[in-house]
Amino acid sequence: MKKISILGSTGSIGTQTLDVIAMHPEKFEIDGLAAGSNTALLLEQVRKFKPRRVSVASEALANEIRGALPAGTELFSGSQGLVEIAAGGDADTIVTAVVGSVGLQSTLAAIEAGRTIGLANKETLVTAGHLVTELARKKGVRILPVDSEHSAIFQCLNGENRSDVESITITASGGSFRDYTRDQLVGVTVEDALRHPNWSMGAKITIDSATMVNKGLEVIEAHWLFDLPYEQINVLLHPESIIHSYVEFRDSSIIAQLGTPDMRVPIQYALTYPDRWHSPAKRLSLAETGRLTFREMDFERYPLLRLAIECGKAGGTATTAFNAANEIAVDRFLRGEISFLRIEEIIDEVLQRHINESNPDLEQIGYCDRAARELAVQL
Amino acid sequence: MKKISILGSTGSIGTQTLDVIAMHPEKFEIDGLAAGSNTALLLEQVRKFKPRRVSVASEALANEIRGALPAGTELFSGSQGLVEIAAGGDADTIVTAVVGSVGLQSTLAAIEAGRTIGLANKETLVTAGHLVTELARKKGVRILPVDSEHSAIFQCLNGENRSDVESITITASGGSFRDYTRDQLVGVTVEDALRHPNWSMGAKITIDSATMVNKGLEVIEAHWLFDLPYEQINVLLHPESIIHSYVEFRDSSIIAQLGTPDMRVPIQYALTYPDRWHSPAKRLSLAETGRLTFREMDFERYPLLRLAIECGKAGGTATTAFNAANEIAVDRFLRGEISFLRIEEIIDEVLQRHINESNPDLEQIGYCDRAARELAVQL
Repeated sequence: MKKISILGSTGSIGTQTLDVIAMHPEKFEIDGLAAGSNTALLLEQVRKFKPRRVSVASEALANEIRGALPAGTELFSGSQGLVEIAAGGDADTIVTAVVGSVGLQSTLAAIEAGRTIGLANKETLVTAGHLVTELARKKGVRILPVDSEHSAIFQCLNGENRSDVESITITASGGSFRDYTRDQLVGVTVEDALRHPNWSMGAKITIDSATMVNKGLEVIEAHWLFDLPYEQINVLLHPESIIHSYVEFRDSSIIAQLGTPDMRVPIQYALTYPDRWHSPAKRLSLAETGRLTFREMDFERYPLLRLAIECGKAGGTATTAFNAANEIAVDRFLRGEISFLRIEEIIDEVLQRHINESNPDLEQIGYCDRAARELAVQL
Repeated sequence: MKKISILGSTGSIGTQTLDVIAMHPEKFEIDGLAAGSNTALLLEQVRKFKPRRVSVASEALANEIRGALPAGTELFSGSQGLVEIAAGGDADTIVTAVVGSVGLQSTLAAIEAGRTIGLANKETLVTAGHLVTELARKKGVRILPVDSEHSAIFQCLNGENRSDVESITITASGGSFRDYTRDQLVGVTVEDALRHPNWSMGAKITIDSATMVNKGLEVIEAHWLFDLPYEQINVLLHPESIIHSYVEFRDSSIIAQLGTPDMRVPIQYALTYPDRWHSPAKRLSLAETGRLTFREMDFERYPLLRLAIECGKAGGTATTAFNAANEIAVDRFLRGEISFLRIEEIIDEVLQRHINESNPDLEQIGYCDRAARELAVQL
């Protein structure tokens, strides 16, 4: 019986992780669930999966649900609650599925406690990749990617020597506006942006996919996960999202991972690695698909991808500032406060005013994160 | 220093194996070379690679070249010469690149002698898969595929549990006549048939590619190499030959191997496994390729593929009869004796008159092989 805890159980990745766990009730049990403010869904999950430990966003929300929990369920709240679910209890694997930079502290706590990490929170590596990977190395903790692209690369590296890797290529669908010109992006709505062609995901990541920030963060994450310089990480436009990503080796062989777009597959792989268990995901038929297409990434069309990679190469707090500015800008776009293209301008302006701190500690990262957010709110 | 011997050094795979070896002179040396009757090329190879042991097709040819060999070079001839190169000397790996069923006896001798096999002669497994794989298991000998499709599958299985395999899919370009209807195949010439769209290969295998016999033999070979029932082996039309083959796992993940069409890559992998060395093969750019297309295999269009798989399922000597009839029919087509579509009829007629012997020994296989050839010559 493998014990799993989920940080962010009511979000898109969290609920799909629970779907996977429900498919293999004889092999998995839930130790802890940490949610935000969707207490109705959390209580439903508690009834179904009977976690021993639960956490919600605030003390007030905790007080609301206390009476509805089965006797003996431990209840926590706030960011300390996230840490309790991450590092307390006795889970084997922690799935870090909270969105945004709140995932960092709890992920570090889980690594410190020796838990295997199923990493879905990309901000963890984006803002503190140097700290997280160093601590994981020190503690001998394995970080297993949940993201479909990184899971694909991880799968393609199975049984291979890392020194034989020539490059990795992350594929990008191009997002909701992949066939729009820059001019056509003026005046697009939130509803347009949320209509992603291939994947069913949360709102923020769908916008990040349309701006290509998502790929930028993935490149930075890949840099840390696979310990590769940015020069060995490519991005390729592949509208069908069938090839999830691939690795080229120095003998010119490419090993690719393919499948239908179903996040439950990489989630399950992170939970069952190195084994593969049956999945009810729709099987891919390439004959039915008929064709796969590919185009060079266009860095003029997607300036935020270029900027993200520049931040990655700069290192230090640049990626934190980029990520924080993006979180605020996307939030403001989703609230209807700013236009789609204003997201780019805000991030760009935050980065222009950013003074980079190299090799930052958690405090410096936190300071940079707050400063970038404050600025991004005002711009 | 890895010592290599090549059976069939002057053929298409043989010369490309020597190309690979010439690229890594500090890591490989040639122990033995067995050729057929192309003594001019063999002597050139002898001058360049300085093998200690050499063999040619006949005693007469041996006498012809004896004087031209460096002092101390051991010279053999005939089928016994092939066995000497395969099992004598001290090569680590024997590349079995002779075309046709003459490869069987020497491959068995190499396995008996404990050599690693780089298998390019598909008739070995097609006619005696049960004997070859059993002997390899008994002797703890590894059979590494050289064929691009089987190498692809072998690479995709790296680091995976065999029990997690759902199916394998061998891709097929469709051969020289892939866009022809059955009616258009009437009257096609040898020259037309030899114009393969993607791969530069020998004449026989190019014809086998146009009739899809090649894929049929590959399916049978895959059955033995990967110990999979025929129900788990699929064939997919993929005109671009970029995805060389792939494996589907039970979690629905597909791992595929891709590359430009260059036989030196799978040849080199068989020589360097489990490592990968640098290759000068043209790197694949999917952005440049632009698109990959796929179609269901059409068993009506390619009846010999269906027949090959039926023979594989029947087992016994059926595959030997199929292969022998095909060798003769293709030879007759290449000599201009029969039409392209007559290849199918001859193989079909030989199989209809064939009386299957299950679990045949070498003598029974030899008898069946000769009988099928005699019949195919007369039809």
